[in-house]
Amino acid sequence: MAKPKTATLIMSGGMDSTTALWKLLDEDYFVDVLSFDYGQRHLRELQQVPILIERAQNDFEEQIEAYVINIASTCKLLFLGADSSQVNRNVEVPEGHYAEETMKKTVVPNRNMIMLSLATAYAISRNHDAVVYAAHQGDHAIYPDCRKDFIESLATTVSLCDWNPPKLIGIFDDIDKAGIAKLGEELGVPFDLTWSCYKGGDVFDQNLPDIHCGRCGTCVERKEAFRLAEVLDPTEYVDGLFKVEAYRG
Amino acid sequence: MAKPKTATLIMSGGMDSTTALWKLLDEDYFVDVLSFDYGQRHLRELQQVPILIERAQNDFEEQIEAYVINIASTCKLLFLGADSSQVNRNVEVPEGHYAEETMKKTVVPNRNMIMLSLATAYAISRNHDAVVYAAHQGDHAIYPDCRKDFIESLATTVSLCDWNPPKLIGIFDDIDKAGIAKLGEELGVPFDLTWSCYKGGDVFDQNLPDIHCGRCGTCVERKEAFRLAEVLDPTEYVDGLFKVEAYRG
Repeated sequence: MAKPKTATLIMSGGMDSTTALWKLLDEDYFVDVLSFDYGQRHLRELQQVPILIERAQNDFEEQIEAYVINIASTCKLLFLGADSSQVNRNVEVPEGHYAEETMKKTVVPNRNMIMLSLATAYAISRNHDAVVYAAHQGDHAIYPDCRKDFIESLATTVSLCDWNPPKLIGIFDDIDKAGIAKLGEELGVPFDLTWSCYKGGDVFDQNLPDIHCGRCGTCVERKEAFRLAEVLDPTEYVDGLFKVEAYRG
Repeated sequence: MAKPKTATLIMSGGMDSTTALWKLLDEDYFVDVLSFDYGQRHLRELQQVPILIERAQNDFEEQIEAYVINIASTCKLLFLGADSSQVNRNVEVPEGHYAEETMKKTVVPNRNMIMLSLATAYAISRNHDAVVYAAHQGDHAIYPDCRKDFIESLATTVSLCDWNPPKLIGIFDDIDKAGIAKLGEELGVPFDLTWSCYKGGDVFDQNLPDIHCGRCGTCVERKEAFRLAEVLDPTEYVDGLFKVEAYRG
């Protein structure tokens, strides 16, 4: 019998990393899940993780180890002064389409390298074959740490970081978010249980309703992905029509 | 007037990173210092950091921002199962010379990428020019994440991680620990205030005296460095003679 495949997956509770979980389980990986509390404004996403894990365990009849790695107080110090809407409450979350220049305000300093370096340590300690994350093609325009060059360089770095390193796998390197919506539908991903909105619902701001805003970059991208993929969008938005027509592709 | 040079330095309280601090201040850098509590057995080293910072501030008449980044509870989970003497109390600290195969037991999973990714986020948030760390040539034999290939790849990764990234500088890439001892002496580094010992003194084990053991890899390397550099070793060791003759070079 072949050795089982083992992976450490970074999971936010959004539709990309949730689809990654379903894909890995579908490919018979044993998966441990790490989620990160780095003090994000959209901490709301993490509330969905245990719900999604429970569903995945039922769907695949598989035990999944899942942990929230809390580095919020560490990051509060590290990010002090950062001009990012997602970790600095004084910077407003920009509204509009991801491709717009203003969306760079949502970049969190070195977020991906931090999460992936910690996940790599976890994987090394448990002899996992792979560290998996769900950045996709569409992320590249605004996120420096989703660019192909960055990801390839990081994969090389990880391959050298230990005498017995895990493989770093960007599982959606080749597809965009519409492709993820399509794939997720095929795999039976419960998209209604995932959370994308960068405004974060009512976790920190009781004036916000506990549904997706429909106007921030991630909400617009989410709507667009479902439309382009011709997959039913089960999400309840405050503003369901915002930018729906503008970027139909 | 030229823009002042700014750096985020990773400092452990050992002789390498302390010499790095003196070198940067001597070169007119403004330096912020980050030290990491990752649950290391040799946490004793961090007790020296504020003492060394105070000395540096006096010597250079310069204010230095310094923080201990506490990721010990995070790392406890990440490193669970890791076969490293420095983060697993069930694994004994090996004695002998660094070049010996047994010393690989002291490798901490992905330690350098974790520290450097967090330090990079700090530097980005403050628009620092550089992130500096003090790995040196002699480290390469046993530490995968001190190898030249790893370091070069990580420098490339950091150069791509942000739209305005800091430069990653391995300040002692070209010299060994004896070279650091020599340089430190020239710069007036108070080596008597630095801590190297991997057994960690009496921080966790009250049976150990609060001086360097003289038998672990870092102690042997420390002794060797001073001897090769022909610099007076001000360190008090439990076993000052262990391996002193064997590796004179």
